[in-house]
Amino acid sequence: MNEEAAEHKSWRYKVSRLVEHKLFTWTIITFILINAIIVGIETYPAFYDGNEGLFFLLDRILLWIFTVEIALRLIASAPTLSFFRSGWNWFDFLIVAAGHIFVGGHFVTVLRILRVLRVLRAITVIPSLRRLVDALMRTIPSMGNIMILMSIVFYIFAVIGTILYADVLPEYFGTLGATMITLFQVVTLESWAEEVMRPVLAIDPSSWIYFVSFILVGTFVIFNLFIGVIVNNVEKANEEDFNGESGADKGAEPLIPDSNTREIQELRSEVAELKEMLKEMNQKNDRE
Amino acid sequence: MNEEAAEHKSWRYKVSRLVEHKLFTWTIITFILINAIIVGIETYPAFYDGNEGLFFLLDRILLWIFTVEIALRLIASAPTLSFFRSGWNWFDFLIVAAGHIFVGGHFVTVLRILRVLRVLRAITVIPSLRRLVDALMRTIPSMGNIMILMSIVFYIFAVIGTILYADVLPEYFGTLGATMITLFQVVTLESWAEEVMRPVLAIDPSSWIYFVSFILVGTFVIFNLFIGVIVNNVEKANEEDFNGESGADKGAEPLIPDSNTREIQELRSEVAELKEMLKEMNQKNDRE
Amino acid sequence: MNEEAAEHKSWRYKVSRLVEHKLFTWTIITFILINAIIVGIETYPAFYDGNEGLFFLLDRILLWIFTVEIALRLIASAPTLSFFRSGWNWFDFLIVAAGHIFVGGHFVTVLRILRVLRVLRAITVIPSLRRLVDALMRTIPSMGNIMILMSIVFYIFAVIGTILYADVLPEYFGTLGATMITLFQVVTLESWAEEVMRPVLAIDPSSWIYFVSFILVGTFVIFNLFIGVIVNNVEKANEEDFNGESGADKGAEPLIPDSNTREIQELRSEVAELKEMLKEMNQKNDRE
Amino acid sequence: MNEEAAEHKSWRYKVSRLVEHKLFTWTIITFILINAIIVGIETYPAFYDGNEGLFFLLDRILLWIFTVEIALRLIASAPTLSFFRSGWNWFDFLIVAAGHIFVGGHFVTVLRILRVLRVLRAITVIPSLRRLVDALMRTIPSMGNIMILMSIVFYIFAVIGTILYADVLPEYFGTLGATMITLFQVVTLESWAEEVMRPVLAIDPSSWIYFVSFILVGTFVIFNLFIGVIVNNVEKANEEDFNGESGADKGAEPLIPDSNTREIQELRSEVAELKEMLKEMNQKNDRE
Repeated sequence: MNEEAAEHKSWRYKVSRLVEHKLFTWTIITFILINAIIVGIETYPAFYDGNEGLFFLLDRILLWIFTVEIALRLIASAPTLSFFRSGWNWFDFLIVAAGHIFVGGHFVTVLRILRVLRVLRAITVIPSLRRLVDALMRTIPSMGNIMILMSIVFYIFAVIGTILYADVLPEYFGTLGATMITLFQVVTLESWAEEVMRPVLAIDPSSWIYFVSFILVGTFVIFNLFIGVIVNNVEKANEEDFNGESGADKGAEPLIPDSNTREIQELRSEVAELKEMLKEMNQKNDRE
Repeated sequence: MNEEAAEHKSWRYKVSRLVEHKLFTWTIITFILINAIIVGIETYPAFYDGNEGLFFLLDRILLWIFTVEIALRLIASAPTLSFFRSGWNWFDFLIVAAGHIFVGGHFVTVLRILRVLRVLRAITVIPSLRRLVDALMRTIPSMGNIMILMSIVFYIFAVIGTILYADVLPEYFGTLGATMITLFQVVTLESWAEEVMRPVLAIDPSSWIYFVSFILVGTFVIFNLFIGVIVNNVEKANEEDFNGESGADKGAEPLIPDSNTREIQELRSEVAELKEMLKEMNQKNDRE
Repeated sequence: MNEEAAEHKSWRYKVSRLVEHKLFTWTIITFILINAIIVGIETYPAFYDGNEGLFFLLDRILLWIFTVEIALRLIASAPTLSFFRSGWNWFDFLIVAAGHIFVGGHFVTVLRILRVLRVLRAITVIPSLRRLVDALMRTIPSMGNIMILMSIVFYIFAVIGTILYADVLPEYFGTLGATMITLFQVVTLESWAEEVMRPVLAIDPSSWIYFVSFILVGTFVIFNLFIGVIVNNVEKANEEDFNGESGADKGAEPLIPDSNTREIQELRSEVAELKEMLKEMNQKNDRE
Repeated sequence: MNEEAAEHKSWRYKVSRLVEHKLFTWTIITFILINAIIVGIETYPAFYDGNEGLFFLLDRILLWIFTVEIALRLIASAPTLSFFRSGWNWFDFLIVAAGHIFVGGHFVTVLRILRVLRVLRAITVIPSLRRLVDALMRTIPSMGNIMILMSIVFYIFAVIGTILYADVLPEYFGTLGATMITLFQVVTLESWAEEVMRPVLAIDPSSWIYFVSFILVGTFVIFNLFIGVIVNNVEKANEEDFNGESGADKGAEPLIPDSNTREIQELRSEVAELKEMLKEMNQKNDRE
């Protein structure tokens, strides 16, 4: 049994070497690209109509290739279940698993969209893209409080808007949901005056207070969100610079006073030398 | 009477402990959330029509809960009137008081909006949100001068616009107020060309000077407002870093040259050791 | 004659003290405000029609008040003509002088606009606003090169747009001037797709290349203008911090490594002490 | 033959001196300006119609002037082919060469656009503009990854949009290409609600998920692109400050701890002196 385990181990080792090989990654990127091209071509009826069978077959082949890929990566994980510790692996697994589950409905819209979402796997597979998206994701929690504030502002203005203008402009303020969408439109400044405010203004001449105050508050909060993220990033960049240059042993090795640090370190070693010399002198004097 | 005061004190102490308890805060947040959901549901006639009595009752209950909450917090304040030193407490007090005052008019729009504004109390109750809004508010005074400048620019362009185009496009430039709203629309770049400038341009071919110069000046000023706030924030963040890391004893302890400071301090202690050694040697030499 | 000069001097001194008095400034600000209110009221026919004589009179009075003010400030200037060294004084002088020159045409549009522009004198009179506008103005030269680049991009796209689409959409691309205005509209992203590109796209299906490339190039250049100014301001702010904190004697005394500088200076004095001690020891040894 | 080479050399030297002369540059800038004015005038039929021959002649003359200019600059290059090492020279060469190649088709649109593009040569000729564009170009590679991410997001949303809304709104989502253009319009927030989302929303009430999620993802990515470039630039500016102040001999001489560096260096030299003194003392002691 020990032998079997060893054999299993070596087998897993071979798989993990295969999975981590550059060629393996490039092969998968190629298949993701082919998948992307196929879903693109399928949107053209001229190519797609009459060739449904061919496209179905190609999709099945790609799905099985991705299934095998993920199975190999699952096997290669040291404790097999550690594979599921990464959110990216979960994403890959679910995208492929869903492809197998929904296959019954023969080319329904959900299945087609799932096939398109497989293109997102490019992010999983290309390390630099994965790092970028990870970095983008990490900025979201720091926006937490300002998001809650934005939600409160949105909700209050949505309820007030629905109370005041549901009868004036039902298409835009008819229900709480419709008002939410309208407020999102207003905060992007899209046709907020021509299509949203002016028709209301024609009936309620004081309604500009509602719209102008929402735009001022909304853009002010977004603007501060923006500034917060910039300041946060500038600071983080500075800190990374400090920690990036130095090794892991020293926590706060700064980038900027690099030359000084070097100078001071050399100075210390010289002072240490001085101490040695004095010790020797001392000992010699003692001996004398 | 002394006993009574002590009793009163202990009673106030109990109330203040109750008010500062986490569970109390969470209960109030829950009621604010319930209030938010109720005002949301009320916007749907399907739920509201026929249940006016129920919603009125629920609102009364919530209003009295908030009244009791604020009364307790008022009692808990050390000198009772110190409660009114905080703008947030004033806000809470007025929102709830207004709910009692306007109740006579049975569900008028003002009362409904007041009930919606109670959702804003979430900011008062959740400390992290209160700090965020306090921080946002503090950025406003620094915008003071640029706001005055913006007002002057707006006013001058509004008067000129009304003089020049009141007859050309009365809906947009008919009165000083209408022109102000139009200029706000133009500065958000919303339909400024299609709906505002081009109809005027068809009659007065040189009117583009007015619109283009207003957009250039307006966005330039806003853009500088933006930059000013960013620079201000980056600086403040740097200063906070300096003062945040160090204790209160040293004014300008910097974050960045942390490792250098450590190195230099160690160097100083080594030089001090050297000095000790030399002193000893000197004394020994003297004795010899 | 010497006496006369002295008298003249003392008279000038009195005027300059008057002009620099806070009350004088506040009086002028009040009159500018009154001027602003009057030009605002004039835009309402309800107030203006029938009262032309009153408004004309008020305007004459204000104009003469400002004339006297500027005359006093002109007299107060040490060499009288040094008054014209400041751009702000030129602005004040021209605004008031133009009011006297154009008075012949009785309330023509030019005269009305001149009266509105007098409100801009608030910037001249309020020192904090003048400093702000001076600061904004100073950022313009640093944009010089990027402005020239933007002009070249605009001109090239304008000529190409006129060549390609003058017949397709004459209202937008009929002449070089019309195309310039259209491109300004496109770069502000206002209705560029719905009203400008899509009608052209219906006739020339490859025209999206022109619009998309212009938007990408245009917003990219503006975006870099933006970044350049931000970086410039952050740097300037840093430099001001450095030079602001330290005295004038040391050019590049940095703000940040303040505590280190102190530590290092103390270290140097200790090393100097060490040297002294060694010298003494040496001399003693020599003497022995 | 040696003599001939020397003569050739001196001839090349004369040409290179001519080419680098300020007057030469200004002459070329003048001709580029004349070229710009001519292509501008040509867009006005009032000037152009009937004078085709004159404009053709002027264009020929300018083309030959630019041809001679580039020939001279080609000759002036030390090894003649080193001329083609610069992208700018390639650009100049191709613009002029294309003018000669397309001349057969007598004033076709391509030729006219080529003549307009010659105005871009102003960037090549004016050094400060060339540096600016070089700087702008250098920021593009750092956007690489985020561009790829943006392309993936665009492609996925384009395919999904075409699948879902090709029948609902064929003008906007009919083909993959049309959807791409629509998504570009949506990401610039131009009429995304009024003209794109609302017609779709009228048929598919859940379509707001598609539009809102695309706007949030799209603007979030662009926003991060923006921040990345700002942070990058602020850092680069800091680094340039460090390297700009110090000489070329020391790589990472920082701007900020300038005074400290000086102090530390003096300290080191003092410690070195100390060491020398100790060595001497040691030797003396040994000798004694």
